Amino acid sequence: MTQAAAKTLATLATPALVLDTVRLDRNLGRLSTRMKGLGVTLRPHMKTAKSIDVARRAFPEGPGPITVSTLAEARYFAGHGFRDMTYAVGIAPHTAAHAMELRKAGVDIKVLLDTVEQAAILGEAGRAAGVTPSAFIEIDCDGHRGGLLPPDPKLLAVAAALKDNGVSLAGVLTHAGESYALHTPDALEAAAENERAVAVDAATRLRAAGHECPTVSVGSTPTAHFATALDGVTEMRAGVYMFFDLVMHGVGVCSTDDLALSVLSTVIGAKPEKGWIMIDAGWMALSRDRGTSAQRVDQGYGLVCDLDGRLYPDLIVAYASQEHGTLAIRAGSSAPLPDLPVGAKVRILPNHACATGSQHERYHVVSGPGGAVTAEWPRIRGW
Amino acid sequence: MTQAAAKTLATLATPALVLDTVRLDRNLGRLSTRMKGLGVTLRPHMKTAKSIDVARRAFPEGPGPITVSTLAEARYFAGHGFRDMTYAVGIAPHTAAHAMELRKAGVDIKVLLDTVEQAAILGEAGRAAGVTPSAFIEIDCDGHRGGLLPPDPKLLAVAAALKDNGVSLAGVLTHAGESYALHTPDALEAAAENERAVAVDAATRLRAAGHECPTVSVGSTPTAHFATALDGVTEMRAGVYMFFDLVMHGVGVCSTDDLALSVLSTVIGAKPEKGWIMIDAGWMALSRDRGTSAQRVDQGYGLVCDLDGRLYPDLIVAYASQEHGTLAIRAGSSAPLPDLPVGAKVRILPNHACATGSQHERYHVVSGPGGAVTAEWPRIRGW
Repeated sequence: MTQAAAKTLATLATPALVLDTVRLDRNLGRLSTRMKGLGVTLRPHMKTAKSIDVARRAFPEGPGPITVSTLAEARYFAGHGFRDMTYAVGIAPHTAAHAMELRKAGVDIKVLLDTVEQAAILGEAGRAAGVTPSAFIEIDCDGHRGGLLPPDPKLLAVAAALKDNGVSLAGVLTHAGESYALHTPDALEAAAENERAVAVDAATRLRAAGHECPTVSVGSTPTAHFATALDGVTEMRAGVYMFFDLVMHGVGVCSTDDLALSVLSTVIGAKPEKGWIMIDAGWMALSRDRGTSAQRVDQGYGLVCDLDGRLYPDLIVAYASQEHGTLAIRAGSSAPLPDLPVGAKVRILPNHACATGSQHERYHVVSGPGGAVTAEWPRIRGW
Repeated sequence: MTQAAAKTLATLATPALVLDTVRLDRNLGRLSTRMKGLGVTLRPHMKTAKSIDVARRAFPEGPGPITVSTLAEARYFAGHGFRDMTYAVGIAPHTAAHAMELRKAGVDIKVLLDTVEQAAILGEAGRAAGVTPSAFIEIDCDGHRGGLLPPDPKLLAVAAALKDNGVSLAGVLTHAGESYALHTPDALEAAAENERAVAVDAATRLRAAGHECPTVSVGSTPTAHFATALDGVTEMRAGVYMFFDLVMHGVGVCSTDDLALSVLSTVIGAKPEKGWIMIDAGWMALSRDRGTSAQRVDQGYGLVCDLDGRLYPDLIVAYASQEHGTLAIRAGSSAPLPDLPVGAKVRILPNHACATGSQHERYHVVSGPGGAVTAEWPRIRGW
């Protein structure tokens, strides 16, 4: 974008999404190093960042394996040279056809399913496109969402249906979604071990029945950071680890100093008699996500920092309407309300980076404190 | 868009935002007729629809007065011929400068403020652009957000500051935001009368002090539909009335048959042992809004209909992750789980039309049952 280099956080129009690459790089390096140490391939989930610039930061040496949550992401990253990808949402007829068109165009896209019906749908889409589909069988490790339990006879039935329909079995895939509800290291380590053990159990059963099962894919940001051994696992998927957020902070995976994403906002009024400061970031800029409301510490719609990312003690976004946020001191705290006149700017650390990011068209990129906006990185959306 | 006319809900890729113009037109006509009967100008809030095609539906005889929530909306609607608009979010230095550039370009944009400081900021922006700004003073009628109480000495101080800074006083503006928390006709009528009375009180005080106060602007969708008299009020603002949603249904303003917006989604799996059906509409397609969770009937992430808009009894979106929704029968109901195999399509009625709409780039337009998609209408976003 023109003149991006001349902008600073002090002059940027608000609300605006800000990404700190010092924190981003540190978060990327932390998990990358961790997975190398555990001998597992990291397949980052691009559903959080939805940005080629962030993907390049994760893969400085060239495109690597990624996970996507939409076929819009698949097309976009394929167009930028990422060819090895897993579309980690259960397949339906229209998405199967679309994914096989991508496969025909040379994208090594693997898809996900857990029923015999989907195996037939996928086989038909493969034949229509003239390609051999590759699919993961989804495994349920904690009752969070979809997937099969390893002892379920459907596991072998689906594998057989894949074979019958000319679909290559990529492997098994599971996601410890319930790990988001935990907050102690012991419980998180146990969740990671359970995720590993269930996935390996499913792979073992498939292999015992004569199926090749090359990939054993697990992943969630909490379990990725608390797994102590990953025997039998071949790859880890995680997405929000790149930016982290207040939900991950509540889980205990990061400190607030690790949060790479924030929303720049301007003060537009005050109600001193109520202890309120009004800002121009409402839920349209912050998202409606209230993920910390179920945690031990409810962070409202976010924590409030100054332009250099220093937290104002106990100042939260207490309320949000579409284009208005209301700052207030957290209930029970005696911290003073800071002096923030109309026109003053603040940065809000969000509950959920995936949801907050999706409300914006681009990142305004900074590198630590100082406020210089060094680049604008576009984000994609849609399906 | 090419070939939009050949599409149907049965063939559309999902998730997709669907707008039913039969319901839209009925909702538009209902409030338009109501306001004519009460002798008040309707100034629709475009923050819900964010679409020129919807705006034209509201004003079939040509551009009329509108309300906007962002300067992106202001630029967009101005570019399509809407020149009379109120930007109903408190002004800050960067938005004041931007709004005055629009004013210089011939857009009759009125802005909002409630402090002496903002009057000075606006005056300076007007002088810089060589235009006379026009501003509403925001009035607080129910403690919901910003604004001044009519007896507050700041009311006359702000009016004087506007005069001193060469700003024209457009009038007073208030919003009964707390009406969303009500659900009985008596309480809603009382909220509408309070909104009216407080706004008129503020205007009366300003006029008694020698200020012209031409416009007395009130508005919220609940109060707009329950006001029985609007003496002294000159205009009504409302936005979500065009589409309605489950929150408005919970307030008692509409029936589920009035909801013009829905999200088309495809079944991607099931967990029969848990009574779950998985769909490809998660919070990215539905939004994170859980506005009905604080109401008497919690609708989860939405109610589930067939393609013609007929509700499945007690079937709700019980859980949502980014790209997955989980359908289940409402707790306590003995309604049967419908037979919806992989590939079946449903329509989800959302909690909050403003939030759900903002997750999508366009409307797929239908006219009542039948499923033919007659047009695609783009939406705008950003600030």
